[in-house]
Amino acid sequence: MRAIVYLIGAGPGGPDLITLRGYHCLQRADVVIYDHRVHADVLRYARPQAEKIDVGGPAADASAQHAICFLIGEKAHEGKVVARLKRGDPLLFDHGGEEALFLHEQGIPFELVPGVPAAIGASAYAGIPITYPGGGDTVTFVRGFDDDGRERMRLDWDHLAGLGGTIVCNAGARQLPKMIESLVAHGRAADESAAIIVNGTLSSQRTLTGTLAELARALEEQPVGAAILIVGRVVNFREHLRWFDSRPLFGRRALVMHSKEQPDDLALLLQQHGADVVMDTDTGVDVYRQLLDRKVDVVTFTSASAVLGFLASVGADQASDLLAHTAVATLGPAAADAVARANLTPAIPLATGTLGAFAEAIAAHFKGN
Amino acid sequence: MRAIVYLIGAGPGGPDLITLRGYHCLQRADVVIYDHRVHADVLRYARPQAEKIDVGGPAADASAQHAICFLIGEKAHEGKVVARLKRGDPLLFDHGGEEALFLHEQGIPFELVPGVPAAIGASAYAGIPITYPGGGDTVTFVRGFDDDGRERMRLDWDHLAGLGGTIVCNAGARQLPKMIESLVAHGRAADESAAIIVNGTLSSQRTLTGTLAELARALEEQPVGAAILIVGRVVNFREHLRWFDSRPLFGRRALVMHSKEQPDDLALLLQQHGADVVMDTDTGVDVYRQLLDRKVDVVTFTSASAVLGFLASVGADQASDLLAHTAVATLGPAAADAVARANLTPAIPLATGTLGAFAEAIAAHFKGN
Repeated sequence: MRAIVYLIGAGPGGPDLITLRGYHCLQRADVVIYDHRVHADVLRYARPQAEKIDVGGPAADASAQHAICFLIGEKAHEGKVVARLKRGDPLLFDHGGEEALFLHEQGIPFELVPGVPAAIGASAYAGIPITYPGGGDTVTFVRGFDDDGRERMRLDWDHLAGLGGTIVCNAGARQLPKMIESLVAHGRAADESAAIIVNGTLSSQRTLTGTLAELARALEEQPVGAAILIVGRVVNFREHLRWFDSRPLFGRRALVMHSKEQPDDLALLLQQHGADVVMDTDTGVDVYRQLLDRKVDVVTFTSASAVLGFLASVGADQASDLLAHTAVATLGPAAADAVARANLTPAIPLATGTLGAFAEAIAAHFKGN
Repeated sequence: MRAIVYLIGAGPGGPDLITLRGYHCLQRADVVIYDHRVHADVLRYARPQAEKIDVGGPAADASAQHAICFLIGEKAHEGKVVARLKRGDPLLFDHGGEEALFLHEQGIPFELVPGVPAAIGASAYAGIPITYPGGGDTVTFVRGFDDDGRERMRLDWDHLAGLGGTIVCNAGARQLPKMIESLVAHGRAADESAAIIVNGTLSSQRTLTGTLAELARALEEQPVGAAILIVGRVVNFREHLRWFDSRPLFGRRALVMHSKEQPDDLALLLQQHGADVVMDTDTGVDVYRQLLDRKVDVVTFTSASAVLGFLASVGADQASDLLAHTAVATLGPAAADAVARANLTPAIPLATGTLGAFAEAIAAHFKGN
C-alpha cells in the first residue's frame, strides 16, 4: 500500500452504520486518527496493531484544526495509510473539507469516504421519516456548534423559517433553545411539531417530541447534551413508525455464550427484539470485564458446555457475585442443570423450544419489568 | 429468523457504500425487493437462493406504490425476511415512510436502515465539500422528480433562493433546467457556481461545473439524464479536491488474475489509482463473460500459473480475440514468458519490481492514452 489518507464518515453512531468502504479502509490503516464522538466499537474494525489517536471533539479553533491537519500530514509523509474517522459524514458540517484541502496542498493522496449523516441516522432510528409527501419538499440541514464559547451562527432566519419543510440541526446544549427561539421568532408556529434526539442510533437513544413551545419549556427545565433537533410535521409519524426504542429489549444488553447450535441465530433474534448483543466469541470480548464494567441485563446459555465455558472465563467462585444484577436465561434441561450445579438460579428457564421461542421468552421477561 | 422487513438504503451508487448493517440485513433476506436504480453488484450481497424482485423506479403514482406495499406485505405474511432496497437513504425523498406506515398498519415488524444519501455520496466523489466555512451554514435538499409526467413541485422559491447556503437536488433530465431557471428567477446569481453529477460514485461518474447560466446553456445543448444538482460556492473547491475522477485509471476496468503472491494487494493498489477492479476469484465472476460483455481495459498476470488459469478459463484459441481491446500487463519473466508462449503481446511488461511499481506502470500506461 502507498501512503494515502482516507477521510471517512463513521456514520451516525451505531458501529454497524459505517459503510463497507469505510470498514475496508479502516482495516487497511496503519494509523487511525479519530474524533472522540466516534463509537469505540468502530475502532475495533481497525487492526489491533494500528496506531489509534484520539484528537478530541471538533476543533475549537483554527490552530487546533491546524494541529490535526499537521498530524495527519506527518503520518502520511511517514508512508502510512491513515484513516481519519469522523462521526456522520466528513463533509457535512465538519472539517473534512479543510483537511482535504490541506492534503491537496501537501500533495498527499486522499479519498473522501462518505458516511450516513448523524441526523439521517437518528431520525430513522427515532421512526421519523425525514421527508414525507405533505411534509414539505425540502429538508434543510443547519450548522450546529458545540458549546465551546462560539457565538450563535449568523443565519438568515427569515428565509430559513419561511421556507417551511423539515429543518434539522445537530446542536449543542446551549444552542438548542436558541434555535427554537429564533425559529419561532421568525415565523415558525410555536405549536409546530419537533423532536430532540440524544445518542441517536445507540441503545442509549432518547427522543423527546412535542411542539416547539413544549420543547423549549422542557429544555429550560432539564437541559440535554448535544442532540439532533428535527422540526416539521414529519415528526408526527413517530407515533406510528417508532420501531427501535419501542422494542421489548431496547436498551438491554444481552451476553450470548457460545454454543455449537448456531448461537449467531440467537444473537440476531435478540437484536430483532431490540437487544444490544455481545457474544463471548466476538473479537476482543472479555466476558469477565463485560459483566464487571458494562451493565449486562441477561446472559444466555443453550448448552452445558456454554455454562462450563462461562464458569471457566469468570471463575466459578465469582459467577454468583458477577451475575447479581443479571438475569440468567437457559434453554433446555442440559443448560439448566449445568447452571443449577453452579448454584445459580435462572430467571428465565425455558425447558424446551426453538431459539425463536427462547428469544420471545427473554423479551417477555423484560417487557414486564 | 422471524418475518421482518428491512427498509434499507443501498447508498449513493457504488456497491461498497452501503452500510455494514444494510449488508448484514441483505445477507439474511429470503426476498430482496429492489428499485432498479440500485447497483446490480449490491444484489450480489444477498444469498444466491434469495428471491430477487425488481420493482422498477420510484413508483409513478399511488396505485403503483400500493402494489409495492402489498408485495412487501405479502412476502412478510409468508414468514419471509424481506430486504426492501432503495438507492440513497430510504426516507429522504423516497417512499420509505409510506412503506413503513403500511407495514405498521399491517402489524408487520420492520426496521429502518439508513443509507448515505445520493447527493452526499456524489458530492464527496466529485470533490465538492457539501459545506465549508464561508460556504454557508445551511444545506437544503430539494425533492426532485423523475420525468414521468409529474408537474414541477410547488416550492417556496423565494425563501429557497433567498436562504443562500448550498442547495442540492436529485433531479430528472427535464427538471434540471427548470430548477436552475427558477433559482435564478428568484434571486440566486446567474454567475453562482454549480455542478451537475451523473452516475455519482460510479466509475461512469461525470461532473459538469460552471455558473448557473453556463449550466443552463450546457443542458440546452446537451441534456443529461437524472443527475445531482449542487448549487453554491462550495463547488469551487472541486478544482482542488477532485480525487476520484482525476486518477489515472478512473473509468478503467482491470481484471486481476489470481496469483499466490497476494493478488489482493494488487487489486487495492489499482483501486488506489482509480481502477474498477474485478478479480477472477470474486464470487460469480466468469472471466470469459467479463471480457465478452464488459469492457476490460487491462488484464494483469503476476505468475505463469495465472496465465495458465486464464487460458483454461477462456480457451487458449480464443484468448487473442478476446483480448483484442484489452492491454495485457505482466510482472516478472515467468508471466511474460507464459504470455509469449500463448502468442500474446503484453502492452505493459514489467520485467521486475514490486506490486506497487507494477500498478504505477499500469497507471502510467493509461495516463498517456
